[in-house]
Amino acid sequence: MYRVGVIGAGQLARMMQVPAIAMGVELKVFAEAENASAALSQTKVGDYTDFAQLSEFAKTVDVITFDHEHVPTELLEKLEQQGHQVRPSPKALIHAQNKLIMRQRLTELGIAQPSWAGVDSAAGVTEFLEAHGPQIVVKTPIGGYDGKGVRVISAVAEIQDWLTNIADFGGKLLCEQKVNFSRELAQLSARSASGEFASWPTVETRQVGGVCSEVIAPAQGVDQISIQDLARKISTGLGVVGMMAVELFEDQSGQILVNELAMRPHNSGHFSIEGSITSQFEQHLRAVLDLPLGDTKMTSACSVMANLLGLDETNDFVSSFKGAMASYPSVKFHSYGKSPRAGRKMGHLTVLGTDAEDCLSQVQGARSALYGQGA
Amino acid sequence: MYRVGVIGAGQLARMMQVPAIAMGVELKVFAEAENASAALSQTKVGDYTDFAQLSEFAKTVDVITFDHEHVPTELLEKLEQQGHQVRPSPKALIHAQNKLIMRQRLTELGIAQPSWAGVDSAAGVTEFLEAHGPQIVVKTPIGGYDGKGVRVISAVAEIQDWLTNIADFGGKLLCEQKVNFSRELAQLSARSASGEFASWPTVETRQVGGVCSEVIAPAQGVDQISIQDLARKISTGLGVVGMMAVELFEDQSGQILVNELAMRPHNSGHFSIEGSITSQFEQHLRAVLDLPLGDTKMTSACSVMANLLGLDETNDFVSSFKGAMASYPSVKFHSYGKSPRAGRKMGHLTVLGTDAEDCLSQVQGARSALYGQGA
Repeated sequence: MYRVGVIGAGQLARMMQVPAIAMGVELKVFAEAENASAALSQTKVGDYTDFAQLSEFAKTVDVITFDHEHVPTELLEKLEQQGHQVRPSPKALIHAQNKLIMRQRLTELGIAQPSWAGVDSAAGVTEFLEAHGPQIVVKTPIGGYDGKGVRVISAVAEIQDWLTNIADFGGKLLCEQKVNFSRELAQLSARSASGEFASWPTVETRQVGGVCSEVIAPAQGVDQISIQDLARKISTGLGVVGMMAVELFEDQSGQILVNELAMRPHNSGHFSIEGSITSQFEQHLRAVLDLPLGDTKMTSACSVMANLLGLDETNDFVSSFKGAMASYPSVKFHSYGKSPRAGRKMGHLTVLGTDAEDCLSQVQGARSALYGQGA
Repeated sequence: MYRVGVIGAGQLARMMQVPAIAMGVELKVFAEAENASAALSQTKVGDYTDFAQLSEFAKTVDVITFDHEHVPTELLEKLEQQGHQVRPSPKALIHAQNKLIMRQRLTELGIAQPSWAGVDSAAGVTEFLEAHGPQIVVKTPIGGYDGKGVRVISAVAEIQDWLTNIADFGGKLLCEQKVNFSRELAQLSARSASGEFASWPTVETRQVGGVCSEVIAPAQGVDQISIQDLARKISTGLGVVGMMAVELFEDQSGQILVNELAMRPHNSGHFSIEGSITSQFEQHLRAVLDLPLGDTKMTSACSVMANLLGLDETNDFVSSFKGAMASYPSVKFHSYGKSPRAGRKMGHLTVLGTDAEDCLSQVQGARSALYGQGA
């Protein structure tokens, strides 16, 4: 039996359980705490910054992979030195952990990006502001997600706290041109340990407050082939093994610029659970186990996913979904089994169909019903 | 959180885990032994004929349901008397446990069946043989499955052992007309605790040696509406809650006769995992929790499932599926995580498509590859 160890027990690990059950893969999960989202497969509760614990866990599986990108690179390198398979390897993963290293490497690969610079001082930020202002984006190279660690500024004073603590971010901040985008896209792909590559249709992602709200698959009116080629170039160039999501801007002139990278199943790919012959979670397991990749064809003309963000500390949606299920019998509900908290990713909804607007209206209707805004 | 307790830890309980994860339902499984197919959700290992153990388990869940039909009726009645929800209720379940009671009740409901009689002696069997021979089918009313407890005979001597031990079968055997069928069909449906009913397209089932080999959904050239109405009549008449599968004969004149009943997810419905908006496993959870039922529409024009039966005591297919996956990237593989044994149901394969013959050829090709008969 194949044994995959996942570090992190969030919803991505939870959703890996499903193809693991189908494929007869033993999934072991290294959780930070009891009662995590992927608790069903929880094998160890521990601290992923403690090498002894990581090493002990690694001995029980054939391959180590991730629910998040927070495990320190040096610990992953030590695991590799001990002979463990770490996929993606720390050499690749560093590009998803450190946005400055990612920008540098994508520049070397000739990939179109927003203008950017690594700066270590107020003077550097000011210089970038003068060149690319009136507004620029400043990011902490490490530790940011879902809009955290990202600020749009028009004066250096707005990131003074980051400059004061710049050592916490590796001594540099990332300044980026603020792209006046017409929409945001994402390209999901997978690359197996032996180099097989597969990509899904490019999707459109809609953000609210820096957090993904809806994903429309496929994105309409984009050059799917060239964007999938872009993903192949990045995945191969960076030596990715497993799932990769490339978040993209489409600017006013139709140019495609890389915004962010993730090397794991990603929120923009949740539609693939029902919407594709092979889901991103199954493909991730196949890729890290070096099994042949599955067919990524869509199962319907289109698929729309909507995130369920926590409203408060009481509504887990599970106890309130009866009404929504009655009104929307074809909407698929996914709970992450988390305790409720405002703004927390609690679950998502997916619907398949032939028309994107109709799908969007269904998932939004179901979400409103779950939010208690009328069924 | 909803809590469902499943008695039995076979592949049906295993496959219930998947929608339980998605829906945020806590699934607890009462297993007969360690390392069962549904071990991931195993909460208790015990003896389902021991009331004290059943009762203790029932206290930990909102509703009790089943992976198999072997729990004695009187124990289920006692659970109900204690105030536990048992779905299907023993009053309904008895029709799936005892084939004589099923035949009697379907006769009362006016459902077309093969000619039948309950007999308690060699003379009774001989009389039925003379009326319906040269061959008839004799069944043990209780305890049979997958062709076990069923014999086609042309002389009473062929079931002498059953007559000798007739007390083991409740004192009677079931004699049935041997239907010269043109093909076998199955009708899946679900009925919720509040009486909502849903059915899937009628499917064609192909048996080899009394065991299901392939299922083709939907069956071609049948009156889907009238067969689905038949299922509704049976489900309502028997007070079923949860999934029901009606196995049917289509005879040479096109008449539809009821062969067997099951009140749980069923092998003939595995195609619905990928092939329908709502799988039979999700629908079973919805029905027993009295949640609104989901849409049973198919996700593609057709879907074909093929069972993977064990070849020997070494091949679990998981370790050999690499080649098959490479040749059949769109075939979905399902392992039941069982230790291999010749003839054992080890897993299944499903493919979606637009043409039944093409789907059939793909799953059969993938199965041959897994059986080591060339990819």
